[in-house]
Amino acid sequence: MSERARPAIDLNADLAEGFGRYALEGDIAVMPLVDSANIACGFHAGDPRTIDAAVSAAKRHGVRVGAHPGFPDLVGFGRRMMALGTHEITTDLVYQIGAVDAFCRRHGVRLRHVKPHGALGNLAWQDPSVADAVVAAVASVDPELAVLAISGSALESRARAAGLPVAREAYLDRAYRADGTLVPRAEPGAVLHDEHAIVERALELVRHGTVRAVDGTVLDVGPDTLCLHGDTDMAAPLLSAVRTALESEGVALRAFGDPADLPRTAHPAPRSTRR
Amino acid sequence: MSERARPAIDLNADLAEGFGRYALEGDIAVMPLVDSANIACGFHAGDPRTIDAAVSAAKRHGVRVGAHPGFPDLVGFGRRMMALGTHEITTDLVYQIGAVDAFCRRHGVRLRHVKPHGALGNLAWQDPSVADAVVAAVASVDPELAVLAISGSALESRARAAGLPVAREAYLDRAYRADGTLVPRAEPGAVLHDEHAIVERALELVRHGTVRAVDGTVLDVGPDTLCLHGDTDMAAPLLSAVRTALESEGVALRAFGDPADLPRTAHPAPRSTRR
Amino acid sequence: MSERARPAIDLNADLAEGFGRYALEGDIAVMPLVDSANIACGFHAGDPRTIDAAVSAAKRHGVRVGAHPGFPDLVGFGRRMMALGTHEITTDLVYQIGAVDAFCRRHGVRLRHVKPHGALGNLAWQDPSVADAVVAAVASVDPELAVLAISGSALESRARAAGLPVAREAYLDRAYRADGTLVPRAEPGAVLHDEHAIVERALELVRHGTVRAVDGTVLDVGPDTLCLHGDTDMAAPLLSAVRTALESEGVALRAFGDPADLPRTAHPAPRSTRR
Amino acid sequence: MSERARPAIDLNADLAEGFGRYALEGDIAVMPLVDSANIACGFHAGDPRTIDAAVSAAKRHGVRVGAHPGFPDLVGFGRRMMALGTHEITTDLVYQIGAVDAFCRRHGVRLRHVKPHGALGNLAWQDPSVADAVVAAVASVDPELAVLAISGSALESRARAAGLPVAREAYLDRAYRADGTLVPRAEPGAVLHDEHAIVERALELVRHGTVRAVDGTVLDVGPDTLCLHGDTDMAAPLLSAVRTALESEGVALRAFGDPADLPRTAHPAPRSTRR
Repeated sequence: MSERARPAIDLNADLAEGFGRYALEGDIAVMPLVDSANIACGFHAGDPRTIDAAVSAAKRHGVRVGAHPGFPDLVGFGRRMMALGTHEITTDLVYQIGAVDAFCRRHGVRLRHVKPHGALGNLAWQDPSVADAVVAAVASVDPELAVLAISGSALESRARAAGLPVAREAYLDRAYRADGTLVPRAEPGAVLHDEHAIVERALELVRHGTVRAVDGTVLDVGPDTLCLHGDTDMAAPLLSAVRTALESEGVALRAFGDPADLPRTAHPAPRSTRR
Repeated sequence: MSERARPAIDLNADLAEGFGRYALEGDIAVMPLVDSANIACGFHAGDPRTIDAAVSAAKRHGVRVGAHPGFPDLVGFGRRMMALGTHEITTDLVYQIGAVDAFCRRHGVRLRHVKPHGALGNLAWQDPSVADAVVAAVASVDPELAVLAISGSALESRARAAGLPVAREAYLDRAYRADGTLVPRAEPGAVLHDEHAIVERALELVRHGTVRAVDGTVLDVGPDTLCLHGDTDMAAPLLSAVRTALESEGVALRAFGDPADLPRTAHPAPRSTRR
Repeated sequence: MSERARPAIDLNADLAEGFGRYALEGDIAVMPLVDSANIACGFHAGDPRTIDAAVSAAKRHGVRVGAHPGFPDLVGFGRRMMALGTHEITTDLVYQIGAVDAFCRRHGVRLRHVKPHGALGNLAWQDPSVADAVVAAVASVDPELAVLAISGSALESRARAAGLPVAREAYLDRAYRADGTLVPRAEPGAVLHDEHAIVERALELVRHGTVRAVDGTVLDVGPDTLCLHGDTDMAAPLLSAVRTALESEGVALRAFGDPADLPRTAHPAPRSTRR
Repeated sequence: MSERARPAIDLNADLAEGFGRYALEGDIAVMPLVDSANIACGFHAGDPRTIDAAVSAAKRHGVRVGAHPGFPDLVGFGRRMMALGTHEITTDLVYQIGAVDAFCRRHGVRLRHVKPHGALGNLAWQDPSVADAVVAAVASVDPELAVLAISGSALESRARAAGLPVAREAYLDRAYRADGTLVPRAEPGAVLHDEHAIVERALELVRHGTVRAVDGTVLDVGPDTLCLHGDTDMAAPLLSAVRTALESEGVALRAFGDPADLPRTAHPAPRSTRR
């Protein structure tokens, strides 16, 4: 069996989400355990030193670098919805993507993808006009940048419509609702902490492309990349457990590929009903 | 006489120094009157919308675009000295330059130069370690970016030593001390407002390469570019008067050239004693 | 006719909405023309120097001082809705009210009222839980502080229910919808600029307690205070015109009274149908 | 022996120095172990929720509440010198003190003291004009607020000159230079980590009023309060050890007293030569 024929998946995490005096310990330990890193850009978290250190560490560990822009709400960690206009969203993202990209140039790596954070990500998944605003930012800075989007979201479809590379994302540590959206953080059970459940979910996602919603619905999400949140102490041990389990099943763990490798046209229709 | 043989100079201004609700009216009217625009990057002033609008306007008017990064001190407009470490300065500048550069890519223009703002600029002129921190940021993002530096400053010499293109700058509206530094803003007479004096200074700078210090000392500053502050209501009429006067003297007004045109080796020693 | 028997009204404006380098010129000229000033607290606008200068000017002109807290969104001037939790709103307001109150103590005046700004104000008018969060902040800092609330709003009723003094507010320069809410700023005609129309509205409000909605509906708003926005160049001439017109009609212009003068129980039911 | 006659000392720590998503774990555990808490005010650290929680916890544990204002430099944690004018310092402090005071009113406790943070504190200890700016802020908000000042500093003398209550502070975990100032954080050995050394220092300070500088000089600092930094994981165990050691020596640990208890006139001249 050739390397290419082996099942393969990418593990990603949101990183570099400290600020100044405040380091998130998870950040430091997580970098060697992911294939792709989504680096906070300074609006919801992150500052020039954390970005610099994260890009440098990503290079050292051979990790693919992406930008993880958010709402301009440091005190709220970008998790509070803000009613920004689409021009405001586009320009806020151009700014943040450019800032991280400059650190990539400084360290001789290439910025490869963009994943919107928190409340902005949620909006971009659900609202086509917000998705378009995100896509416009990415495309205007570099049309070879991939967009990370939860499978079946408005962001996925709008990014494909614009001809951007897309990586479909599934979450290892967030509960899904039957419609394929995530259970909001404010609700109980929104975040998974159990290692066994997380590992089982990873295996199911890679073997079958599916994930179970809280009501038992099987969602066909066909992911290109699996996300586990990097901002907690548990991130490193959980990612280690996932890597070990996947590798022992013969799954290749690697970044989701050069932009050229990502399909630019729509995926075939998913098998389930959610989209 | 060929076009190249005509005396030529560049007029530059610091622009896009509003923030959100706050527009600086000077900004809007000044763009068509300069050859090079130094665009605030969001730390001391500027936000993604003002940067976007400024880069767009610069493109429309054929104005050369530069980044104008400053200290992270919005409430102080970057005019208060801050004791940042050199790594802090370098990373703060990488971030800001990258942010503005992304808007340049968005509008299909090229970022051409960097000019540090306010208290950071003053430090970079005087302190070689700060100058090196600025130069390190510029070089690491794009070694073809020119550095705008007041003639004879540490920033000029350190940028040349690093092989960066340099444009020597002289001020039309700031009083000089006999050592070639500017009279601090807090002192009386620091800022020139008189149109006649400003026009005469511009003519002397282009004809002879010299400027008078407050004590009458003739400083040989051999400028590549002349700066007039863009953040006041008077900026537009003053720039108009300067342009008219220079053009009627047969001086070509144009951006200080592609990076390739700027000398990368040290200028010949200046004629005066100040350096 | 006794002084007390004369019709009286209060004119208020939102002031001190500059930030650092950015002054809003309207601010400076408006203070002598109002009876009550709502001073921005540093989150959507304002900084310690603008607050200090505004409280000092209010004292000099005998103007009643209130706090004008907003969302933590300087770049958006507090005009963008943010989905804050009620505890976040309450604590953000405690912080802002306290900050302005300290300047009142510094200048030997008393903080008298609180008026939420922009998107926060709009939410507090419409959403009882947000209104309660605002009321909780005011009551916990000083239960003698009055709340400025648009007539008939959730904020008015929740403040009364909590036993806080309330001043009912009507707008001189904002278009009303038939349900008594304001036409959003993004819609055409939301802000009135015509001096004649504004003066006529002021006279009708004082004589009859009514205002016309955009569809002609007569709204009975029975105001204690009339607001005109202070952040434009037109604020001062418009306020002058309103003052002159009201005074020539024999209306006393004065701050809406000591907290003790404000009714703490519900107004009689309004005459119109909007509430 | 009466309670009053027993030797007594106050332990203080800087607390509530998290921000939004970022909690400093030390903060939470430290409150029950101190007598006085200096609460960050939102400029160098702290936000309305952390202040609210800290004041509430201080009340629950019977801890005296003070404000701990700093430079407006969140990303630098207020540890970078900024060249603010004295009016800027005064107004920045009025703002911050007022903000914390409002939370005190909300929780029914009284704000008792002010201690400037980080680079601002260092400046206020050394520079009489900065000390005067701090004192002016405190006095204008509430002249019964005590000032915490390192023994022998300009801040101590200027606060006394202004008639403010003063509590002389000595540091348990910072190295002293022979002139009574602290070894800067950037230098090796600036922060003490050894429990035994810290406990011994506390005992010497209470028994003899003295502390050893790095060169062995005995400094007579006669403290009213001992500070240990609260922003590390070691803060709680170190404070516990200090409390246990002091109590076993018969030292009463209690807040440094009502403002009325603090002397408003100069202390007798200290025994050593440093001042």
